[in-house]
Amino acid sequence: MSSIYGNKLKISIFGGSHTEAIGMTLDGFPAGYHVDYDALSAFMERRAPGRNAQSTSRREADVPEFASGIRAGVTTGSPITPIIKNTNVRSSDYDGICNTPRPSHADYSAYAKYGEHADFAGGGHFSGRLTAPLCVAGALAIGLLSKSGIAVSAEAVEIGGETDKERFAGVIDDAKADGDSVGGIVECTVTGLPAGVGGPMFDGMENRIAKAVFGIPAVRGIEFGAGFAAAGMRGSEHNDPFCIRNGRVETKKNDHGGILGGITTGMPIVFRTAFKPTPSIGKEQDTVRLSDMTETKITVAGRHDPCVVLRAVPCVEAAAALAVLDAMMEDGIII
Amino acid sequence: MSSIYGNKLKISIFGGSHTEAIGMTLDGFPAGYHVDYDALSAFMERRAPGRNAQSTSRREADVPEFASGIRAGVTTGSPITPIIKNTNVRSSDYDGICNTPRPSHADYSAYAKYGEHADFAGGGHFSGRLTAPLCVAGALAIGLLSKSGIAVSAEAVEIGGETDKERFAGVIDDAKADGDSVGGIVECTVTGLPAGVGGPMFDGMENRIAKAVFGIPAVRGIEFGAGFAAAGMRGSEHNDPFCIRNGRVETKKNDHGGILGGITTGMPIVFRTAFKPTPSIGKEQDTVRLSDMTETKITVAGRHDPCVVLRAVPCVEAAAALAVLDAMMEDGIII
Amino acid sequence: MSSIYGNKLKISIFGGSHTEAIGMTLDGFPAGYHVDYDALSAFMERRAPGRNAQSTSRREADVPEFASGIRAGVTTGSPITPIIKNTNVRSSDYDGICNTPRPSHADYSAYAKYGEHADFAGGGHFSGRLTAPLCVAGALAIGLLSKSGIAVSAEAVEIGGETDKERFAGVIDDAKADGDSVGGIVECTVTGLPAGVGGPMFDGMENRIAKAVFGIPAVRGIEFGAGFAAAGMRGSEHNDPFCIRNGRVETKKNDHGGILGGITTGMPIVFRTAFKPTPSIGKEQDTVRLSDMTETKITVAGRHDPCVVLRAVPCVEAAAALAVLDAMMEDGIII
Amino acid sequence: MSSIYGNKLKISIFGGSHTEAIGMTLDGFPAGYHVDYDALSAFMERRAPGRNAQSTSRREADVPEFASGIRAGVTTGSPITPIIKNTNVRSSDYDGICNTPRPSHADYSAYAKYGEHADFAGGGHFSGRLTAPLCVAGALAIGLLSKSGIAVSAEAVEIGGETDKERFAGVIDDAKADGDSVGGIVECTVTGLPAGVGGPMFDGMENRIAKAVFGIPAVRGIEFGAGFAAAGMRGSEHNDPFCIRNGRVETKKNDHGGILGGITTGMPIVFRTAFKPTPSIGKEQDTVRLSDMTETKITVAGRHDPCVVLRAVPCVEAAAALAVLDAMMEDGIII
Repeated sequence: MSSIYGNKLKISIFGGSHTEAIGMTLDGFPAGYHVDYDALSAFMERRAPGRNAQSTSRREADVPEFASGIRAGVTTGSPITPIIKNTNVRSSDYDGICNTPRPSHADYSAYAKYGEHADFAGGGHFSGRLTAPLCVAGALAIGLLSKSGIAVSAEAVEIGGETDKERFAGVIDDAKADGDSVGGIVECTVTGLPAGVGGPMFDGMENRIAKAVFGIPAVRGIEFGAGFAAAGMRGSEHNDPFCIRNGRVETKKNDHGGILGGITTGMPIVFRTAFKPTPSIGKEQDTVRLSDMTETKITVAGRHDPCVVLRAVPCVEAAAALAVLDAMMEDGIII
Repeated sequence: MSSIYGNKLKISIFGGSHTEAIGMTLDGFPAGYHVDYDALSAFMERRAPGRNAQSTSRREADVPEFASGIRAGVTTGSPITPIIKNTNVRSSDYDGICNTPRPSHADYSAYAKYGEHADFAGGGHFSGRLTAPLCVAGALAIGLLSKSGIAVSAEAVEIGGETDKERFAGVIDDAKADGDSVGGIVECTVTGLPAGVGGPMFDGMENRIAKAVFGIPAVRGIEFGAGFAAAGMRGSEHNDPFCIRNGRVETKKNDHGGILGGITTGMPIVFRTAFKPTPSIGKEQDTVRLSDMTETKITVAGRHDPCVVLRAVPCVEAAAALAVLDAMMEDGIII
Repeated sequence: MSSIYGNKLKISIFGGSHTEAIGMTLDGFPAGYHVDYDALSAFMERRAPGRNAQSTSRREADVPEFASGIRAGVTTGSPITPIIKNTNVRSSDYDGICNTPRPSHADYSAYAKYGEHADFAGGGHFSGRLTAPLCVAGALAIGLLSKSGIAVSAEAVEIGGETDKERFAGVIDDAKADGDSVGGIVECTVTGLPAGVGGPMFDGMENRIAKAVFGIPAVRGIEFGAGFAAAGMRGSEHNDPFCIRNGRVETKKNDHGGILGGITTGMPIVFRTAFKPTPSIGKEQDTVRLSDMTETKITVAGRHDPCVVLRAVPCVEAAAALAVLDAMMEDGIII
Repeated sequence: MSSIYGNKLKISIFGGSHTEAIGMTLDGFPAGYHVDYDALSAFMERRAPGRNAQSTSRREADVPEFASGIRAGVTTGSPITPIIKNTNVRSSDYDGICNTPRPSHADYSAYAKYGEHADFAGGGHFSGRLTAPLCVAGALAIGLLSKSGIAVSAEAVEIGGETDKERFAGVIDDAKADGDSVGGIVECTVTGLPAGVGGPMFDGMENRIAKAVFGIPAVRGIEFGAGFAAAGMRGSEHNDPFCIRNGRVETKKNDHGGILGGITTGMPIVFRTAFKPTPSIGKEQDTVRLSDMTETKITVAGRHDPCVVLRAVPCVEAAAALAVLDAMMEDGIII
């Protein structure tokens, strides 16, 4: 029911695509961390809209102002609240969406839940714009994790069915030229983790990461290690033999994705996330008019990304970093 | 950190493969529900070990005794605690596991977390046996959901790479004959849900279901609707056009899997779960001896399933039912 | 570990006495509620500083700007975030507090937890100023509860040992003239509740209200119904006989304070909250210098209330309203 | 809505006065703790019924059998579940309670919430018997805290208005002879805590302890340090000056009860809890018949304590210990 995540380190996200501001409160972040504003800006820039030819033409500065929690560049231990003004609002683009829901957007389900007063403008609270405050939190988490030698790194490994990264831009351009969109897959790796983080059953590392990652709009699936491919393997093939490397216990390969029984093994956590194609496309689509329950057509206006996958890469890193940091703080490894 | 799941309807699971008993406490289940013991037994029987030639030879009665929460066959509104005795214990099979972790089991990661005092016998609290109390809760949830016209139904759609169900037994037999194991994919469908259940971001239906389903051992991935295939589709192909059917809003197809923006659309929720092959195989495997940090070999003893996928089917239903019921109770739709 | 409260309706408070802004995010508040801004302003005014001769001379406009969650005066169902700028900051008043903790303030304990980077200015996140966003949330909750006929009303019943309300101003003036401070007791009543709200043990109405009320700085105790006086009564005196009034079950008196077994009886909830005297006094006090662990003296500068009790009255109402609304939403009575 | 307490260390209590068994699951307790069964028995004995002339004549062995979580006397890190059989059940004593609620018991409010299927026998899940599993958890928590030099100790300081402990037995005997009951006050002290445990606002030590303590039936109030008396004091009297003692920061007196800003100061935590007189008395009382909404009389049968205060002493210790241990585990001080 909530836009809140985390057990010990809790993020509470607010705002909508066309509200006055968006932001979040990060509660439980340790005191004494020196914020690297350059790293934060660089991280935000990777997610920001309007940065390349393939992205939406909507530009937002996406500069967070910290209302609290940081003093003289250092975290105080109190809740951290960055606020990002929505400067480039065109809510008139969205008039009447409530009555004619856009296919594969949240318009209809949000209407079913919240009724006519829901904020439909640009997806409202369901907008991908809400990943901006997620990324602020993620940048802080990544920065703190790096002090413990932990690195979080994601990349797009497939876009529109294409796995050759050099062709990604072309695939997206083709979709855009057709008034269409494409999805893709992001792979994320977390290295440097000690063994023993997490727990069995419902608060295992997979559960935690999955809960965070499905908070990013357009995610349709997540798999760890060999993932769905493991379903077609035999145990003798899938099992990862233990070995000693440099005096440490490791596995000879990493089909388990760094997690066994919900607990880290010390091998890198590896997971992949599937993103659907952007539901906003230039083509006319079938929909319904809720006011009189008749069928009708819609052509979605507004400025939209033909592909969110590249911009989603830092969002996946942010979600993973929050999940990992929260687990390590709960385990008392990072205090 | 915990074997507890749920916001309003909370399950807390206890026990290990070879402890005296296993069970759970289900807190928040409504009063006045007449327990269908036959349906409960039939549900448990689907998960129970030793029921067919393909399954482990370990047999457990798996009959829950309710210590509390049910009086004269009707739930009282107080916490429900079924207790299942572990009658068929052979912990001597597991001596020394702590020192030589079994590949792709939780032995090593649990040792890293809990140290030498962890319960390694048969996987301890990480054992698939812990899905028995999950299934008791699931049977109750499924029964209560059915009063609102909601049905939860799963099936194995792939085993060992084979999608023809008539060949599943053969695939498993072949693996068993080779002292090996196979994984598979379970597809689950929830029908009869109203539109408007769930919420955006971190408590969306995907997040809730994923968090529950990753509580089942051996799960490596989950995907909703078109899932990973969506990553290779264009928006014009993936988007689900709205239409009016029988006076209700529906979509012409269901690539969105019944969930948009974390909220149900009224179409069936559809998701698939990937299970890895059972890590316990009869073949000798490479491992390490933790006491002196040397490499060694292990041949896993004990009675094991060459494939857990068939027995996992009701577990997936149970996890989905708990996630859906909890969300509906939080939304005040089922009270 | 957190400034977050609530199960279904969650408030996350941020900011400090001298940060750029303070505020909160209220997650889970229903859509479709028309905000009564006049009532909100009037409620905030009751808590605001500098409104009478007895209060601190620091004045703050305390006008919340809603960054999200309200559109055209109506809640959208998305998280509601009011932001209150801190306009009247004099952080230089607080230089060096870290090293010489003020007696009975949170300086020392916060230093022990967060170290030198904690925000000590004006109490930082521990300041009574953080009750301003609590009151915004409370005003919304009170407004929504009133739609169901539920009223939340508190008053100061004792100040500085004096129970005659006409003498409260004099008691406070006397303390102020002496450079001293006084505490008091606030009694809160919630009427119009149906029977059956709440639950046994740890999520009972007392637990919920107590958890919220102890979030207000300076609270030292809480008692329900006859409270501590009940400890000196006999059962035959304390027990509240049931009766029928106007066709409803009531009790002839209300020593139980409207709650039995953690669940409402339909009688008014009545509880009292004890506030300690403001720790900031004009007199010189003994303290320590942490840098060299020696004893020293401190005279607390800054503008302080000689008594926070009158301004705390709406804060108690706010905390009670959030606790009651959250419980009713969880029970599916208010959706 | 739940009988679950704790953030990192979670207790989930089940059972009723006359169900087959009662117990709890303690999730998150560290591995490697050697259980002191003698200390556990002694602790349980302090709470057990039927141990002296002043107590109920119902005797229960109250011997917990651990279904899981302990192996060879040592905790494994997995959920710990003690089960206590209810051996001495006389549910016929309680026939018809549902229709004629006992004054100041939870019968009526439970009926309002759960309806006719609620378990009313002996108070059902609302019974003081549920403090037995709380005490098992408390004994484990106290044992683990003692390894860090932390001691939890409570005592009755007032019974039936009498503060001279030597007269407590007489006060109780007098009430019993009159078919009546008395309440009292329990004071609890936690020593040996480091400074810096807890946090501001809603997860402060007072909030945590209050939430736990109000889980004990019959509690009507809680106060910390000077408590309600603080309301009548001046700041110059109530403030606790800091000083250096044995090279440590202490306060010269402890009116703050060891907590400032929700965080421990290193001084002992001191709080008092008010217990109402047992609602079960031998005298005829006014009540109502719910079936036809008429007024009637009731004389409560069954075997009841004329005073629960002495038996409640270890329960208060248990609640305090769980609250403190959970906070210390969340803070990463005890892992």
